[in-house]
Amino acid sequence: MGTLHFPQQVIRRKRDGLELSRAEIEAFVRGATDGSWADYQLSALLMAIFLRGMTPSETVFLTEAMLKSGSIADLSGVRMVKADKHSRGGVGDKVSLHLAPMVAACGVAVPMVSGRGLGHTCGTLDKLESIPGLRVSLSIPEFRAQMERIGLCLIGQTAELAPADRKLYALRDVTATVECIPLICASILSKKLATGIDVLVLDVKFGRGAFMKDKEAALELAVAITKVANAMGTPTRAVLTAMDEPLGRAVGNALEVAESILCLGGAGPRDLMEVTYAIGGEMLLLAGAAHDRTHARARLERSLESGLALVKFREMVEAQGGDPRVAGDPSFLPRARFRRPLQSVARGFVTRVDALGVAYAVQHLGAGRSRADQPVDHAVGVDGLVKVGELVTVGQSLCTIHASSDGAAREAMEIISTAIEIGETAPVATRLVDRIVD
Amino acid sequence: MGTLHFPQQVIRRKRDGLELSRAEIEAFVRGATDGSWADYQLSALLMAIFLRGMTPSETVFLTEAMLKSGSIADLSGVRMVKADKHSRGGVGDKVSLHLAPMVAACGVAVPMVSGRGLGHTCGTLDKLESIPGLRVSLSIPEFRAQMERIGLCLIGQTAELAPADRKLYALRDVTATVECIPLICASILSKKLATGIDVLVLDVKFGRGAFMKDKEAALELAVAITKVANAMGTPTRAVLTAMDEPLGRAVGNALEVAESILCLGGAGPRDLMEVTYAIGGEMLLLAGAAHDRTHARARLERSLESGLALVKFREMVEAQGGDPRVAGDPSFLPRARFRRPLQSVARGFVTRVDALGVAYAVQHLGAGRSRADQPVDHAVGVDGLVKVGELVTVGQSLCTIHASSDGAAREAMEIISTAIEIGETAPVATRLVDRIVD
Repeated sequence: MGTLHFPQQVIRRKRDGLELSRAEIEAFVRGATDGSWADYQLSALLMAIFLRGMTPSETVFLTEAMLKSGSIADLSGVRMVKADKHSRGGVGDKVSLHLAPMVAACGVAVPMVSGRGLGHTCGTLDKLESIPGLRVSLSIPEFRAQMERIGLCLIGQTAELAPADRKLYALRDVTATVECIPLICASILSKKLATGIDVLVLDVKFGRGAFMKDKEAALELAVAITKVANAMGTPTRAVLTAMDEPLGRAVGNALEVAESILCLGGAGPRDLMEVTYAIGGEMLLLAGAAHDRTHARARLERSLESGLALVKFREMVEAQGGDPRVAGDPSFLPRARFRRPLQSVARGFVTRVDALGVAYAVQHLGAGRSRADQPVDHAVGVDGLVKVGELVTVGQSLCTIHASSDGAAREAMEIISTAIEIGETAPVATRLVDRIVD
Repeated sequence: MGTLHFPQQVIRRKRDGLELSRAEIEAFVRGATDGSWADYQLSALLMAIFLRGMTPSETVFLTEAMLKSGSIADLSGVRMVKADKHSRGGVGDKVSLHLAPMVAACGVAVPMVSGRGLGHTCGTLDKLESIPGLRVSLSIPEFRAQMERIGLCLIGQTAELAPADRKLYALRDVTATVECIPLICASILSKKLATGIDVLVLDVKFGRGAFMKDKEAALELAVAITKVANAMGTPTRAVLTAMDEPLGRAVGNALEVAESILCLGGAGPRDLMEVTYAIGGEMLLLAGAAHDRTHARARLERSLESGLALVKFREMVEAQGGDPRVAGDPSFLPRARFRRPLQSVARGFVTRVDALGVAYAVQHLGAGRSRADQPVDHAVGVDGLVKVGELVTVGQSLCTIHASSDGAAREAMEIISTAIEIGETAPVATRLVDRIVD
């Protein structure tokens, strides 16, 4: 039948529940990269993979093929161990923004490639771009030069790194094939390993505000991805964290940057810092920059106290063309025209701050996008958000809404007021960092 | 999320094994017809349907939506009851060519829409087009006029009839989603019912030379399709027939036309006539043109003896622009330059004539196509093929190969010689017409 029929043959075999060979998986990834497979063939195979699954070795083959679909950044000129973290995104999750400089301040290089927000969460790139002038699209030589000079870089996926993933991710998004563990593994790892990192830590979230609602599914993903990454020779751990209420007190692009700068100044909210230390600790441990968790935590805390993490942040902003003054004064960030406090109508304990409800409100304000080509409003969002377990009185502010119009503020207020629940008894505290998968 | 996300939502629900609503299925079919769903979304849903299945009511909704995606031919001007048959194709299956005129000769109108050959079988349209000048693409008004005038028409699918099926069928072919019972049901019935027929008989084949190798799968399809068609108000029966050796003694476009003309002259091979009478009988019964199977068979035999069936065939050829002289003299059909007998090297009973082997040889000669845009050679093929159970002697011809070159003839000869087995004991006769599904 010749090579012309190859896509159908590969699709048919996966459809029938058979294990694909390395050559078949390579043909698929090559087809995605060079266009020799039609989009409808790629998406048919993606759906077959979604429903039939992939074995661990198929997932390794897929990850390797996607990794090799583009260039692998040569960071051999960077003398330090190179660590990266990945989070599947959560509401208010701005950990990367301050954690990367903290880890870099501890002498571990961080060549971080992040994504844009899609769906209900704001992406790291959108947050970074709220810093006036900051560029997230660097060429590979620029990326390498910055890594060699300051050991820290936060950029977007480039055309050169794992192009097959860009193609497949875009298709998965519009064909309901996103939530599939082998595809997620290959997508994350191919992008991350293409920057030539030595070690990797994953923040896998579960709960109302996470992509995975269910802890068991999150654990399954964490186990699968660490297995594949370790099989490919990159020491990797996953931290399982709860995402029921937003992380920290701010949600929205510039507002989250401001909160990260607060963290770098040593004044970050407790929950946000707990996750930051958990992930950062594993990064230092894997990178050999700490001998145990206590030591790792001490080094990370020291990076804040010494001011070195903030210095690394400023260096990174400046290197990528951003206004470095934001590091010292968040008023250089864009500010929304309307700021309205949401006042409590009850007295009692905050028993619930629904991450998804807050996310919808913030998206409604214009901070997110439902299509990849939509612009985002960097200034809008909420901050000063109460946390579960806090005691509030009538009239006390539950959060401040930053909006581009008074009407939008009022609508967001209505959404958020249903997301926050106040009761008479203090809720049982839940564990934020559930476990570490090795 | 708005209608923009509708395709993903429908795909997601089917992916998760949920039953789609009529509105969701209509959105999918509308999306296929007007292009508002991307091909990659259509194919993702097709794969999800393939792997998750469809309930009987989903299949009815799909068939109805595909039927309504185009015009339905208004044949109210045709006074007779309108019957059609459908076969999923088999090697040497030229039943439609002579059966349609036979049924028409019995006073039942036959507005038959057929397909082209793809894969290992020759299509009815390709066979018809071997008749010089004959057109299979009629407009709906031409089709209607011919039906009103002679009560018989054999044409190809038009752009107006069930356009959603054309779109989806083309996609299924290249995404390994062909062999799926609900999709097959909807595809066949939407096309067939769009011609405004009153009753329908299906020839569902199983065996080596059929699309369905397995009798149980064929029975499942027969039951599903009769159920859906009857639920939609069109009395329908299915005849299950074995397809292990080719039907009749000729395989190839013009060679099969010649054999059909032989059938119309009362000299058709026994096996071919057995299937012809079985299907034709059910058509007459459903159409109310016979009171039992014996009566139906007698009427069909009479149509041959009286010469009326051959007259109807000639009328049809002439009405569609073909050379009517072929009806009296098959030498007006295209003839291959090289004709080579394949001689038996053994003496004994023919124990096997592998339909698939013969089909490959004939395809190799150029009679079929592996891609929809390939031309076919009408003249090539085999005839005079021995039948299982026949006694042959050394040197006796097992078939005659019709080829465009001596080299092609030799290659085909080699393929066919492995497809024919000769043994010492007569094989046990197998039943050709297995059962009728009501």
